[in-house]
Amino acid sequence: MDILHYQKDFINYLESKQWVSEPKNLYEPIDYIIKLGGKRIRPVLTLMAADIFSNDYKKALPAALAVEVFHNFTLIHDDIMDAAPLRRGKATVHEKWDTNTGILSGDAMLILAYQYFENYEPVVFQKLAQLFSKTALEVCDGQQLDVDFETRNDVTISEYINMIRLKTSVLVAAALKMGAIVAETNDENANLIYDFGLNLGLAFQLQDDYLDAFGNPETFGKQIGGDIIENKKTFLYLKALEVSNKNDNAKLKSFYSQKLVENTTKIIEVKEIFVENNIPSLIKEKIESYTEKAFTTLIKMDISNESKQNLKSFGLWLMNRSV
Amino acid sequence: MDILHYQKDFINYLESKQWVSEPKNLYEPIDYIIKLGGKRIRPVLTLMAADIFSNDYKKALPAALAVEVFHNFTLIHDDIMDAAPLRRGKATVHEKWDTNTGILSGDAMLILAYQYFENYEPVVFQKLAQLFSKTALEVCDGQQLDVDFETRNDVTISEYINMIRLKTSVLVAAALKMGAIVAETNDENANLIYDFGLNLGLAFQLQDDYLDAFGNPETFGKQIGGDIIENKKTFLYLKALEVSNKNDNAKLKSFYSQKLVENTTKIIEVKEIFVENNIPSLIKEKIESYTEKAFTTLIKMDISNESKQNLKSFGLWLMNRSV
Repeated sequence: MDILHYQKDFINYLESKQWVSEPKNLYEPIDYIIKLGGKRIRPVLTLMAADIFSNDYKKALPAALAVEVFHNFTLIHDDIMDAAPLRRGKATVHEKWDTNTGILSGDAMLILAYQYFENYEPVVFQKLAQLFSKTALEVCDGQQLDVDFETRNDVTISEYINMIRLKTSVLVAAALKMGAIVAETNDENANLIYDFGLNLGLAFQLQDDYLDAFGNPETFGKQIGGDIIENKKTFLYLKALEVSNKNDNAKLKSFYSQKLVENTTKIIEVKEIFVENNIPSLIKEKIESYTEKAFTTLIKMDISNESKQNLKSFGLWLMNRSV
Repeated sequence: MDILHYQKDFINYLESKQWVSEPKNLYEPIDYIIKLGGKRIRPVLTLMAADIFSNDYKKALPAALAVEVFHNFTLIHDDIMDAAPLRRGKATVHEKWDTNTGILSGDAMLILAYQYFENYEPVVFQKLAQLFSKTALEVCDGQQLDVDFETRNDVTISEYINMIRLKTSVLVAAALKMGAIVAETNDENANLIYDFGLNLGLAFQLQDDYLDAFGNPETFGKQIGGDIIENKKTFLYLKALEVSNKNDNAKLKSFYSQKLVENTTKIIEVKEIFVENNIPSLIKEKIESYTEKAFTTLIKMDISNESKQNLKSFGLWLMNRSV
């Protein structure tokens, strides 16, 4: 099992497709975002799962493409909603074209994603489309909760975990399960790999929260403290509010009600509060607990020990990025 | 066959559904647009076709709902793109909430539409979803062409017909074919009723163009001259450019480059050019020709003469509104 190999095969498949057709103003933005790059983690997961359950991962390429096109659809629409100017260092679709183009090209991508499932026979098609619809709707729910939380001051940690589960983890889980469905393994294996992905996805997102404040600036890839600057109520913030004293609570709430031009002091002081309240350890425990949960589901799976070891290695590789 | 009966059954079915769930900010706009009313023509077509081919039209209710929810999704996103403040006399979703809500609730509706097909077994499910994806993508293509045409001065009549075919007729055609698919009739019947719908849809849209300028203000339901005010390059305008002399050409182009506050004179003068160039007769010929084409496909259908007569009556009823 070689992740780079899946990645290369997927990119070849993606680039073999004709993305631009008429009307050009609809399809050129799709070609643009699809070829903007990225790690292609989700489609790699689909191929990996198909490989584990059937040894014929190429059969899963259309399903992998559906996942990637869907993911990129969410990026276009989310970037409009966030008024984000940049994506992967390049202009976002609504910046390069306009908002209307972003809306319509995004819509077309959501439909295109469903069309890739037409490569499979009816029973597999229905299973894939059904899982996809459920997942896509959950991603919309998660996006809405994320928006709702911006203006709420009473978000609990369990609500936050539920939001990141919907907004990011279910797609990771579904990407794996789609590979299992294409491989036509039994339902139990398919559900176990879904659970593996769901817990790994939660661990990954919480690690993202941690790295945003405490990661290595040279390897993290994003600006350190970005969430603090944006007043994002991540696990770090919510946990700190939960465990800290009145004084720290007031300071945090005050910091998170300000939008500043110069953020150096704000980042330093917020991180100090996090550290004084032991938040880095608490979030690491949580990350570990979800990672362990993911690995536990592997035990129950009806696959070779080698495959289990491969999935575990993949999980460790994913979680060991630049901590 | 009683159209009002289908309509009533469909509305009952629609109202029996629980539209609002969590997160409320995502689903309340869906509940709002879905219950805003309208003639429900497209879902009625699905039920009618199912009745003709199987006598069990209630089985087609989920497919009919998919068509209606999809249609309402296009209304939300189109209204954002057109910056339209009103829909059916009420505030549009992006006006009542905001643009981001309109985008995300619309996305969720597109996914919900696919989910209604899950009521059918795999082979029927795949046929429905496949036709739906093809149609939905064509509707996006049509919407993009409509946007493109706004800034083009060389749109031909055949390009215009192609645009309205994509933007409106294919959904009418697909609504009928979905009824045929649910009824599990043969492919030939399903394709013939699609063609019937496609041609009737074209006739209907061209009649809309005609009525917009020459309809009875008391029965048309929209403001007479709306397309002229908006400088919409409909069949009337494009045909007039094609057949009129230099002088009328110049006058038309001049009128269609102006956005005015007071439009009475513009409407009168543009309509005069249309009449002097015999455009009302020319468009009526075209409408008749598409209607005839629709009725001709009925002859080849493998259904009772009574059913053919019912479909023809429906076509005549649809085309005889307030001319």
